[in-house]
Amino acid sequence: MASGTEIPAETVAGRKGALSTVISIDAMGGDRGPAAVVAGLVLSAAELPDARFILHGDQAVLSPLLARAPTLAGRVDLRHAERVVTMEDKPSQVMRHGQGTSMFSTIDAVKNGEAPVAVSCGNTGALMAVAMLRLRKLPGVNRPAIACYWPSRNPSGLNVMLDVGADIKAEAADLLQFAAMGTSYARNSLGLARPRVGLLNVGTEEHKGRAELHQAYAQMSAAASAGEFDFVGFVEGSDIPSDRVDVIVTDGFTGNVALKTGEGTAKLISGFLREALGSTLLARLGALLAMGALKRLQARADPRRANGGVFLGLNGTVIKSHGSADATGIAAAVRLAHQLARADLANRIAARVASTGLAGQDAAATGAEAGTAE
Amino acid sequence: MASGTEIPAETVAGRKGALSTVISIDAMGGDRGPAAVVAGLVLSAAELPDARFILHGDQAVLSPLLARAPTLAGRVDLRHAERVVTMEDKPSQVMRHGQGTSMFSTIDAVKNGEAPVAVSCGNTGALMAVAMLRLRKLPGVNRPAIACYWPSRNPSGLNVMLDVGADIKAEAADLLQFAAMGTSYARNSLGLARPRVGLLNVGTEEHKGRAELHQAYAQMSAAASAGEFDFVGFVEGSDIPSDRVDVIVTDGFTGNVALKTGEGTAKLISGFLREALGSTLLARLGALLAMGALKRLQARADPRRANGGVFLGLNGTVIKSHGSADATGIAAAVRLAHQLARADLANRIAARVASTGLAGQDAAATGAEAGTAE
Repeated sequence: MASGTEIPAETVAGRKGALSTVISIDAMGGDRGPAAVVAGLVLSAAELPDARFILHGDQAVLSPLLARAPTLAGRVDLRHAERVVTMEDKPSQVMRHGQGTSMFSTIDAVKNGEAPVAVSCGNTGALMAVAMLRLRKLPGVNRPAIACYWPSRNPSGLNVMLDVGADIKAEAADLLQFAAMGTSYARNSLGLARPRVGLLNVGTEEHKGRAELHQAYAQMSAAASAGEFDFVGFVEGSDIPSDRVDVIVTDGFTGNVALKTGEGTAKLISGFLREALGSTLLARLGALLAMGALKRLQARADPRRANGGVFLGLNGTVIKSHGSADATGIAAAVRLAHQLARADLANRIAARVASTGLAGQDAAATGAEAGTAE
Repeated sequence: MASGTEIPAETVAGRKGALSTVISIDAMGGDRGPAAVVAGLVLSAAELPDARFILHGDQAVLSPLLARAPTLAGRVDLRHAERVVTMEDKPSQVMRHGQGTSMFSTIDAVKNGEAPVAVSCGNTGALMAVAMLRLRKLPGVNRPAIACYWPSRNPSGLNVMLDVGADIKAEAADLLQFAAMGTSYARNSLGLARPRVGLLNVGTEEHKGRAELHQAYAQMSAAASAGEFDFVGFVEGSDIPSDRVDVIVTDGFTGNVALKTGEGTAKLISGFLREALGSTLLARLGALLAMGALKRLQARADPRRANGGVFLGLNGTVIKSHGSADATGIAAAVRLAHQLARADLANRIAARVASTGLAGQDAAATGAEAGTAE
């Protein structure tokens, strides 16, 4: 390992002493149940030789599933949790009465330092509330944020947007912190040395939009140099997948609506495409010939490939996978968790936010690219 | 004409005494210039035998274009305007110094009662400002709104969303008025007797979202029966193209971001599709066979088909066409203008807003379907 000091203790100190990356995973609460989670772990285990998993949920359900997955033997630490947080549970109730749920147990493994990162497919609002309650905000962070990937025309094929729903509002100072956190995230997950940050608005002209956006515009312009990002100014909804920006900053209400609107539009068009290609004999024949290309298109625009909203600004990283994630989606979320654990993302964000000038604390900036440092 | 009283004087009193529908059109200010507008009118003239046009712009440019369009002879009244509002002009400047522009002239034809509806491809902010200044808000309307169509899974293939950018905020009372105006618009443009209205939020649970959304939720629930719409409650971004709602109500900031995000996503996917289908010989052959089906897909998801944001809540209807609209896009906007003129939309909205109980004033509700009443 070339730069051992870059890798924090909790990612290398496996519970059996080996150099491993430990990921805490909630087996319950997803729409497809624990079988999908275990199937995802089978994929992840094959892909990530150093990964080990702490799996939280009902032992009576999980033990038989694990017994049928021999490749997971010795790599999964099963933690029994009696209760499950459902999609209908209100965050406030889960915070007060959630002890004993697999979600609490999953987050507490991060709180206790057993794993640097947690993954759950459960209720987003409850997961954010539990993560806030148990992990607490990083020093200096006012408002945590959820960041997501977005299919884009950039070389990596992905842009980052935040906040997509941790909260329903953001002041100018929050938006500036989102820029700093999003920069760290893009640097450590997409390997961009100097991400380009845009502020989502209803037009690109400086006079457009709400007052807090004008304040944030000025603050980001001033902070860009010290924060080691390029501020490209206001961007519009149509720019979210574009190659003129890497990180799109917005409040959690707008970001959540935009994310779901993008997903809904993609689903509508892919549905229309399927119907069109099945509509006539010629079209069906054509679709058969173009099958390979159409599959690559699907992979390129598939939200599952980029599965996982990441909670930034807490003492530990938490990944919210889609509620409907299948094994492929779970594996994508685990891959991201593994990458962020190895990059020590939470501590990098803490250092960046703590440093008044937002000076360089991230991997690419110091030349020690996370995950490739060994 | 079965129900003459439903059709207002200005739509039937053609300038030469014939029964015609007069549409005021700004020839200038679009990205493709006046040639695209005139080409659009050629399509419209063939499609709408009773339509007559007042065309505003530079006579030196427009006269030669009209001379090359013999089918427009006798159907276009050319109004010379020296000046043009550009995409860079600020709304406030245009309001103060915009006299003599084709945009002012286009709106003034509605103000003077020569036409019930105006169409422009120009600068949206300036057009809204000029329309507000010259036409004034309808009695009882606090905040006008821009409504747009959205490709959807409903039988008509279209949903309505408002506000998509007239203003950057909306209080609960404004959102309720948007529900009433959007209901009128959906009834008179899509022929829905009892539109289903949804309020855009970050989740469908009643406790989610901002305070003004909770107030609007209660007000819409109470007003639905008298307003002759069904209130389906909160909807999410993913529901905008769905068949569980016809009219999506939101503030102008969120609506504008959602609209542009949807457009950007559709453009990204169609670009990816084009690249995928051109990537291999087999794919190209397949695309050739499926050509007919792919063209129908494009038509179904094409924003040009539904071209036109409609300004609601003013003394007269104004349609903002896409700045980049080509002849097909212009013709779509003119078709919509013609339909709304014949439905007497502005007066119907005025009556609906004025009546405290939002009682039935619209075509479908009274059984006299606009445009089919003759």
